[in-house]
Amino acid sequence: MSGILSSLFCLAGITTLIANGVYDSAFPLHDLLHDEWARYGAFYKYQPVDLIRKYFGEKIGLYFAWLGVYTQLLIPASVVGIIVFFYGWATVETNIPSQEMCDEDQNFTMCPLCDRACDYWHLSTACGTARASHLFDNPATVFFAIFMSVWAVMFLEHWKRRQISLNYSWDLTGMEEEEEHPRPKYETILLQKKQRKKKNKKNKNEKLTWRDRLPGYLINISSILFMFGVTCSAVFSVIIYRITISALMAMSPDPEVKSNVRVTVTATAVIINLVVILILDEIYGMVAAWLTELEIPKTETNFEERLILKAFLLKFMNAYAPIFYVAFFKGRFAGHPGDYVYVFNDYRMEECAPGGCLIELCIQLSIIMLGKQLIQNNIFEIGIPKLKKLCRTLKDKERAPKEIVEQPGRRQQWHLDYDLEPFDGLTPEYMEMIIQFGFVSLFVASFPLAPLFALLNNVIEIRLDAKKFVTELRRPDAIRAKDIGIWYNILSGLGKFSVIINAFVISFTSDFIPRLVYQYMYSETGTMHGFINHTLSYFNVSNFKPGTVPSISSLGKDVTFCRYKDYREPPWSTEPYQFSKQYWSVLAARLGFVILFQNLVITMSMLVAWVIPDVPKNISEQLKKEKTLLVDVFLNEEKEKLQLIQSLFSRDLIQEQQKEQQVSDQTSLIRCIYDCGAAGLFVPCQI
Amino acid sequence: MSGILSSLFCLAGITTLIANGVYDSAFPLHDLLHDEWARYGAFYKYQPVDLIRKYFGEKIGLYFAWLGVYTQLLIPASVVGIIVFFYGWATVETNIPSQEMCDEDQNFTMCPLCDRACDYWHLSTACGTARASHLFDNPATVFFAIFMSVWAVMFLEHWKRRQISLNYSWDLTGMEEEEEHPRPKYETILLQKKQRKKKNKKNKNEKLTWRDRLPGYLINISSILFMFGVTCSAVFSVIIYRITISALMAMSPDPEVKSNVRVTVTATAVIINLVVILILDEIYGMVAAWLTELEIPKTETNFEERLILKAFLLKFMNAYAPIFYVAFFKGRFAGHPGDYVYVFNDYRMEECAPGGCLIELCIQLSIIMLGKQLIQNNIFEIGIPKLKKLCRTLKDKERAPKEIVEQPGRRQQWHLDYDLEPFDGLTPEYMEMIIQFGFVSLFVASFPLAPLFALLNNVIEIRLDAKKFVTELRRPDAIRAKDIGIWYNILSGLGKFSVIINAFVISFTSDFIPRLVYQYMYSETGTMHGFINHTLSYFNVSNFKPGTVPSISSLGKDVTFCRYKDYREPPWSTEPYQFSKQYWSVLAARLGFVILFQNLVITMSMLVAWVIPDVPKNISEQLKKEKTLLVDVFLNEEKEKLQLIQSLFSRDLIQEQQKEQQVSDQTSLIRCIYDCGAAGLFVPCQI
Repeated sequence: MSGILSSLFCLAGITTLIANGVYDSAFPLHDLLHDEWARYGAFYKYQPVDLIRKYFGEKIGLYFAWLGVYTQLLIPASVVGIIVFFYGWATVETNIPSQEMCDEDQNFTMCPLCDRACDYWHLSTACGTARASHLFDNPATVFFAIFMSVWAVMFLEHWKRRQISLNYSWDLTGMEEEEEHPRPKYETILLQKKQRKKKNKKNKNEKLTWRDRLPGYLINISSILFMFGVTCSAVFSVIIYRITISALMAMSPDPEVKSNVRVTVTATAVIINLVVILILDEIYGMVAAWLTELEIPKTETNFEERLILKAFLLKFMNAYAPIFYVAFFKGRFAGHPGDYVYVFNDYRMEECAPGGCLIELCIQLSIIMLGKQLIQNNIFEIGIPKLKKLCRTLKDKERAPKEIVEQPGRRQQWHLDYDLEPFDGLTPEYMEMIIQFGFVSLFVASFPLAPLFALLNNVIEIRLDAKKFVTELRRPDAIRAKDIGIWYNILSGLGKFSVIINAFVISFTSDFIPRLVYQYMYSETGTMHGFINHTLSYFNVSNFKPGTVPSISSLGKDVTFCRYKDYREPPWSTEPYQFSKQYWSVLAARLGFVILFQNLVITMSMLVAWVIPDVPKNISEQLKKEKTLLVDVFLNEEKEKLQLIQSLFSRDLIQEQQKEQQVSDQTSLIRCIYDCGAAGLFVPCQI
Repeated sequence: MSGILSSLFCLAGITTLIANGVYDSAFPLHDLLHDEWARYGAFYKYQPVDLIRKYFGEKIGLYFAWLGVYTQLLIPASVVGIIVFFYGWATVETNIPSQEMCDEDQNFTMCPLCDRACDYWHLSTACGTARASHLFDNPATVFFAIFMSVWAVMFLEHWKRRQISLNYSWDLTGMEEEEEHPRPKYETILLQKKQRKKKNKKNKNEKLTWRDRLPGYLINISSILFMFGVTCSAVFSVIIYRITISALMAMSPDPEVKSNVRVTVTATAVIINLVVILILDEIYGMVAAWLTELEIPKTETNFEERLILKAFLLKFMNAYAPIFYVAFFKGRFAGHPGDYVYVFNDYRMEECAPGGCLIELCIQLSIIMLGKQLIQNNIFEIGIPKLKKLCRTLKDKERAPKEIVEQPGRRQQWHLDYDLEPFDGLTPEYMEMIIQFGFVSLFVASFPLAPLFALLNNVIEIRLDAKKFVTELRRPDAIRAKDIGIWYNILSGLGKFSVIINAFVISFTSDFIPRLVYQYMYSETGTMHGFINHTLSYFNVSNFKPGTVPSISSLGKDVTFCRYKDYREPPWSTEPYQFSKQYWSVLAARLGFVILFQNLVITMSMLVAWVIPDVPKNISEQLKKEKTLLVDVFLNEEKEKLQLIQSLFSRDLIQEQQKEQQVSDQTSLIRCIYDCGAAGLFVPCQI
């Protein structure tokens, strides 16, 4: 095997050997990778990770190995996700709350969705969203959220083991971080500082302290806060857009416009969100690089880590801010009939669709996730490189007339390679996957199909990246690496964060807890019958503020009470429209569930991490065996050498008395160093 | 220094050297430790850890170093604890709730504390406990709980650093776990299995699988569950004792007996608890050893780890069960007036004292903690060894007449040593400290003085242990160890567990949250005025079940409503005696606080663990420097040797052609091995 492969630069020799019949055939590694790995047809095959490492080096090899493990582990997650989805689909007919919502006999007259222009409406008209939301909001989802949290831990543990196996087979086990040279930027600034200081006093071993970096840190913090503000205001602008457009459309006299309000507004708003995310993503990438430069990190590794951390923070915020808004804030500040919250004095704060916020969260998630993946894959990873290449070719053609004269005939390989894009690090590749991992883990409770979409994307992504590395980029310099570095910490952090987020999504965004509370505390029959009625509060239409009553109403005459989704005291209680006892009991149950869920999942994760050993058993045994072997070999050789030296010296005994002493010193030094070395200990030996 | 110390067995030589004036003086290490370390007078000094290690070995050295670090870090914790306690003490006069409770004008008539025999009573009579409970139940306690959680993380991080420093200076850096021999028990059972199998088929490399261990595991699980049951029933028996005795005493006609009910019952019950804990502790220690034997662990380390884990689990449960009961269960199942919960149909479930459960928790904690420490220190660590020694001496004296004839004159050192106790492991020492660490971290929110008591105990404990090791035990075999092993994991687990426990103590056992909720949601003035009234529900005395009305009552005639501490609807509401809206809102606030507290503390702990590097900077620099030095030394020596060998061989060139080849092979082998060794890599080299 290694004969076939170690042959990039000695084709001539290989040709002779093939001619002599020593080998049957030989392939350059590049072509082998191109044919066996970098094509979509091979999507079902394991990646030839060892070959990738041989050609691209350990760092890129680890990336593809990691991507492979991640994709592979997405398979069980997708399967369970699909089962959960189908469970929802199968039980939608027997689900009492959605039946009740669709039941036209239970004629709940709901309060109007906007001031004046909107009419009262019947809850049964929202039947569709109710049924759709059951697909994602059912008890199986709770199980799935727990499953996915444990899955995330399993994935990390599995990767740790795989990494150690790879380290072993790639001979990286004993590799230690070498001391890096400082970055030129750092050196320059240090020099400047030294020159400034020279006038005052001499100081050896000068280095940059936090004082020198203070301005950089301050700019960093304020810029990140500013970016945070930008992200938030982008989200807020889209909200304003949604509020105003829906208000304007609701006022339109055309009934067709009116009926399509929600769909149009939601769709356009999400697309705007997506575009904003994609644009800010690019900007934030550049800002992060600029900010890291300001921090003057000492070494290149240092620089990379800080850059990744910052870029991740900004991009994560950017991608998730609208989703967080929908999951935890939308509809919670809208007030209630008679006391709505207004933005700019005129527009009511938006509420969730009657089916609950979960279905909106689900739509938002799927569009942003799919859109981001499709657009980033197609435009940023395929389109833009192609465009750049085109530009380059055009430019070349302009200059072509001259060069053709210089270079007739077939173009050399280096010219062909020069046409390719330069390689600029693995960060964008990892970043894309980590943000995707966020979609798979963070809000998985609201969208069980996320792992499936991620899986489909990754199966393509692997080959797309492979194609890119093999055919579109200049061959990157091979870099040794033992692990995936800070990305592992980010993944593990995301995994931990996802537990609390999922707990909150289940308990606050979905209707899981209110249903449970109703069934076990309030339902007289112990079933879910009457749940919808229980979740709707009464509002006396005479309490509408002047000017907010529906102006033209088909139902208006008969209505004395309209209903709205909230737990508030009815108009006839002593404290009308205050939060009712139900509100507080449901809130307590929700919070209790968060505590239970979080601690359960943390305990399970710790258990899983504890049960799965980090080092695979065969590797640890292998390492032990090798150590024993090494000791044996060395002792034997050492003995032989001693005998040899003795036999040599015995002849020269008298003349070389002094020199002998020296050699025996050396021998014991060697033995001593060997002992230290074998124990992994680096202490100068005393002889 | 090393000259003074390395001298136990060569006093004669040292004497000569002293006589010659080479040294001024010399002390045997044992005497030095005895004088400088193992005495109470030295309590303020750092321990001579290096000397301890030299005399007792690394394992015991690490124990004392750990104990030292722990004790040292208890100092800031104690100081903050004392400040918190004094804050409570200083604000008790200005504290509105306790003022209101003591205010005799606000004449709250409380419902009787027992059926028939007890009378209605005025809340102001519970003034004392109200004031006392403010000492431990004030906003500073919340801060202290957060502080102590972070403190626990700091302690662990600090210890990690200290351990690495010690590893470095004790030359353990490169020490690797050596393969251990299986325990004889394991070998025996394996042999039996092999003999059984032989009849059926041959099987090499046989080992015990989970099938062989299954009976052991089953017995383990069931025994642990049984022990759990025993602990719970012990706690429950004490509850029954408390309930019956207080009921009987309340029925006594003697007014003096009546007035002392609570004090007498609480005091005797806690003492019974303490005695039960101490007895079960010894039993559980033996049971754990027996259970571990059944699991047939392969190696001694394995055995020790499993034993420790089991013993810890059982002893922890044992020590904390009564405290958990008081903190989280007491008074929560007592029912309410008119609908009390009865045990054995006759006795009402016990409630907490009017000042709240926190003060009882505090009493329970302090008595168990102090009692356990004092009794264990005095009886188990001083008394019993002395007793054993006495027995031994008496036995010896019986045999003395014969021996005296054989051995006239001064007894030899080995005879004196034989009189000492044998050393049976560090487990009891660690266990004692870990259980104490539990008291310091788990319920610290209810007892800010715990660190102080722990500190006082440990200052003595260090010297007590030192005395024991130096004068009362046979000198233990020195064992090498890199770390404190599984104890670290237990400590870190306790630290994590303490976060959630403290969150629950603050939010459920203390009145912190109800006070906050009252101040910001219900109080009309925004102050705490009226809080006591708010926490007391009304009960219509006509709703008492027949036979439970106070029989002889000084207040009975005028009372139509009595009050009790709970959030329930008043008798005149539509749902009398159901939980009120306040109950649910306070519950929600409590649960919300738990989530907030837990996640805040987890985040802070992660931050602290992340900010403090595990390896002290000077050590990591030192290690790097040594590595460079080693490489230099080796390369130099290697070069010289090569030159030497070459010069030797050049003379014998013709005759020794073949041998030369061999040597150069060896040299490159050495170099190769060296390279591998320097990289910490143990791969057989290919030449």
